[in-house]
Amino acid sequence: MKKVYNTEILSVGTELLLGHITNTDARDISEMLSQIGVNVRYHTVVGDNPQRLRDCVAIARERADVIITTGGLGPTCDDLTKQVLADCFSLPLVESPTEKEGLYEYIRGGKRFTPNNLVQALIPEGATIFHNRWGTAPGCAFEAEGTIVLMLPGPPNECVPMFREYAVPYLKRLSEEQIVSHSVRIFGLGESAVDQLFRDEMNKMLNPTMAPYAKECDCLLQITAKGHSEAECEAMMAPVIAQVRERLGDYVYGMDIECLEEAVLPLLKERGLHFAAAESCTGGDIARRITEIPGASSVFVGGCVTYTNEAKARLLGIDPGLIETNGAVSEPVARAMAECVRLLTGAELGVGVTGLAGPDGDGVNPVGTVFVSLAAGEQTWVRHLTLGEKRTRHFIRRMAGNHIFDMLRRYLSGLPVV
Amino acid sequence: MKKVYNTEILSVGTELLLGHITNTDARDISEMLSQIGVNVRYHTVVGDNPQRLRDCVAIARERADVIITTGGLGPTCDDLTKQVLADCFSLPLVESPTEKEGLYEYIRGGKRFTPNNLVQALIPEGATIFHNRWGTAPGCAFEAEGTIVLMLPGPPNECVPMFREYAVPYLKRLSEEQIVSHSVRIFGLGESAVDQLFRDEMNKMLNPTMAPYAKECDCLLQITAKGHSEAECEAMMAPVIAQVRERLGDYVYGMDIECLEEAVLPLLKERGLHFAAAESCTGGDIARRITEIPGASSVFVGGCVTYTNEAKARLLGIDPGLIETNGAVSEPVARAMAECVRLLTGAELGVGVTGLAGPDGDGVNPVGTVFVSLAAGEQTWVRHLTLGEKRTRHFIRRMAGNHIFDMLRRYLSGLPVV
Repeated sequence: MKKVYNTEILSVGTELLLGHITNTDARDISEMLSQIGVNVRYHTVVGDNPQRLRDCVAIARERADVIITTGGLGPTCDDLTKQVLADCFSLPLVESPTEKEGLYEYIRGGKRFTPNNLVQALIPEGATIFHNRWGTAPGCAFEAEGTIVLMLPGPPNECVPMFREYAVPYLKRLSEEQIVSHSVRIFGLGESAVDQLFRDEMNKMLNPTMAPYAKECDCLLQITAKGHSEAECEAMMAPVIAQVRERLGDYVYGMDIECLEEAVLPLLKERGLHFAAAESCTGGDIARRITEIPGASSVFVGGCVTYTNEAKARLLGIDPGLIETNGAVSEPVARAMAECVRLLTGAELGVGVTGLAGPDGDGVNPVGTVFVSLAAGEQTWVRHLTLGEKRTRHFIRRMAGNHIFDMLRRYLSGLPVV
Repeated sequence: MKKVYNTEILSVGTELLLGHITNTDARDISEMLSQIGVNVRYHTVVGDNPQRLRDCVAIARERADVIITTGGLGPTCDDLTKQVLADCFSLPLVESPTEKEGLYEYIRGGKRFTPNNLVQALIPEGATIFHNRWGTAPGCAFEAEGTIVLMLPGPPNECVPMFREYAVPYLKRLSEEQIVSHSVRIFGLGESAVDQLFRDEMNKMLNPTMAPYAKECDCLLQITAKGHSEAECEAMMAPVIAQVRERLGDYVYGMDIECLEEAVLPLLKERGLHFAAAESCTGGDIARRITEIPGASSVFVGGCVTYTNEAKARLLGIDPGLIETNGAVSEPVARAMAECVRLLTGAELGVGVTGLAGPDGDGVNPVGTVFVSLAAGEQTWVRHLTLGEKRTRHFIRRMAGNHIFDMLRRYLSGLPVV
């Protein structure tokens, strides 16, 4: 085998070409591969068509050493990846007894099942089977005629965990170079401001490298080193990371995490504190975000979604006169929401959100006006956000949530909250 | 020119291959193209490397009549698409006076600007310019050596509006065929069961075609027709859709919508009814899902997220003895949650969810055990779900929500609820 492993991700599915779904599998696989030092050279998407898939495999063999397919492993008639790939590499398909047994077990488990499900137990001869604990279609890997082929099912909730559990270890033994990457997560500064701050250094850096990336409602600096070992990479990055953290100060909310709530949860745990949420325009998204993380029950007690004025009064006990006087989207109502939900639940901390996520306004405030609040001890803080009338409903709701988690983070870290 | 226009979308950017960003441009462009009857045959992603881009252009010219590039038009040193494409089709780059003037105007507007920004005014000779009102890098289109080439910038907030405004009209005049597609959304039957039901017809169908697709927690049948006009396509599909709907009965929850809540919202509106939600394991996701849709305030009053037993008692007024006796994850508690939140808010309908989303269990019920309930009038219905211990937290929460919306849909449509 060649020394450098160039990879092509070949996704099979007409629904991708029709724009019904986004190719998140290619993104997620690429991210996992870059973390283990495997170079991804190409992504290709082709429809459920045997001849075009065959042509794509021929091209991929020419320009890559590793071909990773996603999609087309299921039982339906347009699922053809396994047949075509086995054929391209002159391998017969043979029935796997363990996979067949697994499928029968699935039936005995009371799941609806049809005879065409059984074609899923067919595997290219000699291939390593990736058993699918998240669905029914198994994946597999084989090495033939100088090419390494891995096949994964298409649904992201099967593809991603299977890739992590089976494909990463399978490929890791092939990689001679280690790539290690860290992301410094930033809230409160935009990508272009971050770029401006570090531009001179970034242009001079070769290894490690550093690059800013914009995420939906925050941004990050990605620092990546190549070396012979993980330890060597880490040693190369340590001074760079230290310098970045010093320069950005408390705009940095964490390293190698995905979102602000992931920073908040351990801070609450450490201090043995709990919070409750009163949500209007975010409509439950703050509760959803914190409870998406396992173990949230030790820091989050619950809260109220009060989408109407009446619900604000009935569920939270907010004085209807306060809403009458100030409007539902106002500083005093946000303040009352955080304080009421805190008292109501007995949590040490309460947060509140009221605002206009659009598309309709309230005739007073522009869309994108949001008040976010935090009540703790004797004090309540409120931020007044104007997120912009051209922003989507989704953006406004997410950004409002980010501000709530940022206030919690700052309070819990002893930083100024507003 | 050939009669059928086969298109390849060629996205340029190392950040796509590193998994830093998702190729949403390809999805959005594909969707717009399928609506105007242009066949997308391939998506390709290649890094910021001139030679590899050149190779990809050579492959694309062989297999497609239209090449649409995204990315690599900006001023930074790794933006090379325009140079390479012009070169591949032997066109010189010439400075566009209007684009140059536009860039100078941008400077006068006080925006940050560097000399290399001016390379953006270079355009392949004879190309139609797509002026970029959303950023600085213009796009363009040309026809050369039997191929139509369109180039768009990479950032989605520039690429998508530019494609809609310039590229769609540019391509529309080339398309002789119309493609129209409808999706029949199904809940309660898996993709393979649906495939089994319709396999014989699907194998025989040429135009329209029909294919089943699995979504995260439901599935769909996509029916697609090609014809000379939209009306012709619709007429071809009408009997097929009628037959599918008849065969699938009340498993069908809607057409051309994305999720169950989109079916529930208009049903509630029609009947002037409101609902409230008491959520434990879904942690606010039901509230978030309904309020993600604009106009939710006319059907959803709010609710409580009661993530702890204490919150169930304090916020909803559930008898702690009931939880003590039956456990928090139980039929009686789910029933009480729906009934309490209904009374508390004054909504006509109340829903409740209590269950184990994992990874940890409660020592009694397996992970994936969920009770979902609907209280309406004098009656309360409860479904006992066993979603499987191997499912992700995300899946269990989403599936529980789907069952809630399915119960609402069935109740509002006069169908049996459980």
